[in-house]
Amino acid sequence: MLSDLSLRWNKTQEQMRKIGADACLVTSNTNLYYLTGMVINGYVYLPAEGEPLYFVRRPAGLEAPKVRYIRKPEDIPALLKENGLNLPRLLLLEGDQLPYNEHVRLQAALNPQQTGNVTSLMRQVRSIKTEWEINQFRISAQKHAEAYSRIKECYTPGITDVELQINLEYVIRSLGSIGYFRGFGHNMEIYMGSVLTGENAGAASPFDFALGGAGIHPSVPVGANGSPLKEGTTVMVDMAGNFTAYLTDMTRTFAIGNVPDIAHKAHQVSIDIQDEIMRISKPGVACADLYNVALEMANAAQLGQYFMGTTQQAKFVGHGVGIEINELPVLTGRSKETLHPNMVLALEPKFVIPNVGAVGIENTFLVTATGLEKLTLFEEGLIPIIS
Amino acid sequence: MLSDLSLRWNKTQEQMRKIGADACLVTSNTNLYYLTGMVINGYVYLPAEGEPLYFVRRPAGLEAPKVRYIRKPEDIPALLKENGLNLPRLLLLEGDQLPYNEHVRLQAALNPQQTGNVTSLMRQVRSIKTEWEINQFRISAQKHAEAYSRIKECYTPGITDVELQINLEYVIRSLGSIGYFRGFGHNMEIYMGSVLTGENAGAASPFDFALGGAGIHPSVPVGANGSPLKEGTTVMVDMAGNFTAYLTDMTRTFAIGNVPDIAHKAHQVSIDIQDEIMRISKPGVACADLYNVALEMANAAQLGQYFMGTTQQAKFVGHGVGIEINELPVLTGRSKETLHPNMVLALEPKFVIPNVGAVGIENTFLVTATGLEKLTLFEEGLIPIIS
Repeated sequence: MLSDLSLRWNKTQEQMRKIGADACLVTSNTNLYYLTGMVINGYVYLPAEGEPLYFVRRPAGLEAPKVRYIRKPEDIPALLKENGLNLPRLLLLEGDQLPYNEHVRLQAALNPQQTGNVTSLMRQVRSIKTEWEINQFRISAQKHAEAYSRIKECYTPGITDVELQINLEYVIRSLGSIGYFRGFGHNMEIYMGSVLTGENAGAASPFDFALGGAGIHPSVPVGANGSPLKEGTTVMVDMAGNFTAYLTDMTRTFAIGNVPDIAHKAHQVSIDIQDEIMRISKPGVACADLYNVALEMANAAQLGQYFMGTTQQAKFVGHGVGIEINELPVLTGRSKETLHPNMVLALEPKFVIPNVGAVGIENTFLVTATGLEKLTLFEEGLIPIIS
Repeated sequence: MLSDLSLRWNKTQEQMRKIGADACLVTSNTNLYYLTGMVINGYVYLPAEGEPLYFVRRPAGLEAPKVRYIRKPEDIPALLKENGLNLPRLLLLEGDQLPYNEHVRLQAALNPQQTGNVTSLMRQVRSIKTEWEINQFRISAQKHAEAYSRIKECYTPGITDVELQINLEYVIRSLGSIGYFRGFGHNMEIYMGSVLTGENAGAASPFDFALGGAGIHPSVPVGANGSPLKEGTTVMVDMAGNFTAYLTDMTRTFAIGNVPDIAHKAHQVSIDIQDEIMRISKPGVACADLYNVALEMANAAQLGQYFMGTTQQAKFVGHGVGIEINELPVLTGRSKETLHPNMVLALEPKFVIPNVGAVGIENTFLVTATGLEKLTLFEEGLIPIIS
C-alpha cells in the first residue's frame, strides 16, 4: 500500500503547488486515513515537496519512520526544524472540517504568513480515485450485492420497516461491514442507512440525503419510522456498503403484493434515467447536464412532482462516494464539475409516490476512459415480495 | 415537553447573562436537540432574555410559531429586526464545534462587536440535567439492563468478539435503540460500542475511549477485532444505551471458563472502587478526588500497571453522559469540577490483564442531593460463561 500512499501524496502536492502552498496540516479522520492508511489522534504534515511527517498523540507504540510523537500541536514547529523543514509561509488547514478554536490554535502554533483551506482541495483530489482505492470499492460492491441478495430473507409478513432494517443490519454486519459510516458535514447523521415504506418515504428530513423519512426518534429524524410493511406499498432499501473504508451506495425497491401501475411506471423511469446517464456519460461531460437529463426525463414522464421527493425535493441525482458517502462531484443543476476518469459516483434517480412509497434504484459506478462501469450488480426491477 | 425546553433556555440564558452575552446562535445537532427537542438544518438564536427563534432551512413544513424559514444565514439579521430583536453586540457561537469557515461566515453575517464561545458554556449547562432529561436516562437504563440480561444468549462456544457484538447489536436494536450515537470531538468514532477480549483489550487506540482495541479495519481502529472467545480469557461488553437521545453507559465482563485469580481480584477491585466512589460522592465533592481515590485503590491492590489500560492508560475513571457519550464533568486528576445535583455520570474503573483481557464494570449514576443513585441495574460480578 505504500506506493499507493505515495500516489495520493503526489496528487495532493501537485494541487498544493498550483496554488503556491508550502504545506498542509490535516487532522480529520477522513483525510488522515486518505494520507496515511490509518487513523491517528494527531496530524499529518504534508509539505509541497517530499514526504509527510505524522505527528501523533495516540496510539502509543507506532514505529513507522515518519512518526513523531507530540503532546500538543505547539510541539510541531521545533520538530519540523529538527527534520530539516522550513516553517510554511502559506499553510493549508481544514477550513471546512476543523472546529474554529482548533483552527485558530493551529494558526497560532505554526504562525504562517498566510493560511488557506485544504478541505476543498482534498475533496477535489479525493474525487479521482487510485487503482488501490478502486479495488476497495470493488470489494465493498461485491459484499453489498451479496447482502442485497438476502433482503427477501429478512422479510416476513407483518413486520415493520425498522424490523426489516434490523434483520438486514445483522446480515450486513455478518458479511463484514465496519458499521461506522462517514459523511461530510453535520447534516449527514444516519445509522447504517435508510429503509423507507409507504407515507414515510415522503416525510421531510433536515438531513442532506436524497430522500427523508421521519426516523424512530426526533433526535435522529431520518429513515424508517416503525411503519408496518403493507400490501400495495413499496419498501426502498438504501443501506451503506461500508465493507472497506470506501463506501458503495446502492438502493433497491421491493413491491409488497400488488402496487399501483404508477409505481411500476416510475420505477421503470428510474431505470431509464440510469441507463440514459450511463449512455451519455464519459470524461468531460458536465455533471449539471446529467442532472438536467434526469429531470427532463422525469418531467417528460409527467412524474416531475414526485422526482427525488414530494414535500421536499433533493436537487441532485447522484454524488461522488469514497471514504465519505457524499464526496465530489455532485450531480446537480448548479454543478460546474465535469466527469473525470477514476471518479466513483452513485446515481440515484428516485420517485416518491403518495400513498405507495418510494421507487427507483441506486448504483455505484466507476468513470472509465469511455463511460461508466457499474460496480453494484444486482437485479434492478421492482422486486416482488409476497405479502 | 415545552416547559422543560423553557427550563433549558432559562439555564442557558442565566449563564449567558453572567458573561454579558446578548445572544447565542447554535447549529450543532447536539445543541439543537437540547434547545428545541428536534434536529433541524438551521440555527437556534437564543437571546439573553425572552424566547428563541428557530431559523430553518429544512425540513419543509414546520409550523411552530418560533420557526422562520431561511435560505442562508445572511437572512438572519433582517428577520431579527422584523421580530423586534436588536442585533447582538456580544454573540456566542459554537467555537469548538463549528467548522472554521462556518464560524467566520456567521460572524460576518451577524457582525457582532464581539464573538465568544458557547460550546463550553453549553457543555456546562448540559451537565446539570432537568427532570425530563433524567427520565430519559431512566428509560435508556432500563432497556440497557434488559439488553445486558440477554448477552449470555448471544454467546455460543467458538464465536468471535465481533460475532458476539453483532448478535448483541441485534438485541439492542430490537429493544428500540436509535443506533446513531453522538460523541464530542473527532476522536470519538465508534460503532454502537465496544466488545473486548484477550490480548485485544490492551491494543492502543487513537480514540478517547477508556479502553482501546484494534477494531476490524484500520479506518476505525477501536473495539473488537475478530478474536475468538477463548477459555481462560474475559470478554468485556461496553455497548451504548441509546434508547433515547440520552445515552446510558454500562459495562459488564464475562469470564469464559476458568480465568486466573488476578482477573477475579482485579474485577473485585473495580467493584470496590465503584462502591467507595459511591460512598464518598455527594454534591461539592471534587471530581479530581474521585479519580485519585480510584487510582490509589488500584495501586494499593498492586494493580496500578493494569488500571485503565497497559500500553496506553486512560487518565480518567468516569465522565458525564447525556446527548453525547462524553459530557462534563470528567473524573480525572486534573479536573477542577465538583459534583452537582442532577449531574449524570458514568463510572468505569477497569483493568487490562495481560493474556486474559479486560475486567471491571461501568454504571451510569444520577448525582442526588445526598449521593449517587445507580441507574443501570444488573449483576456486577465477573459473570461466568461456560466455554
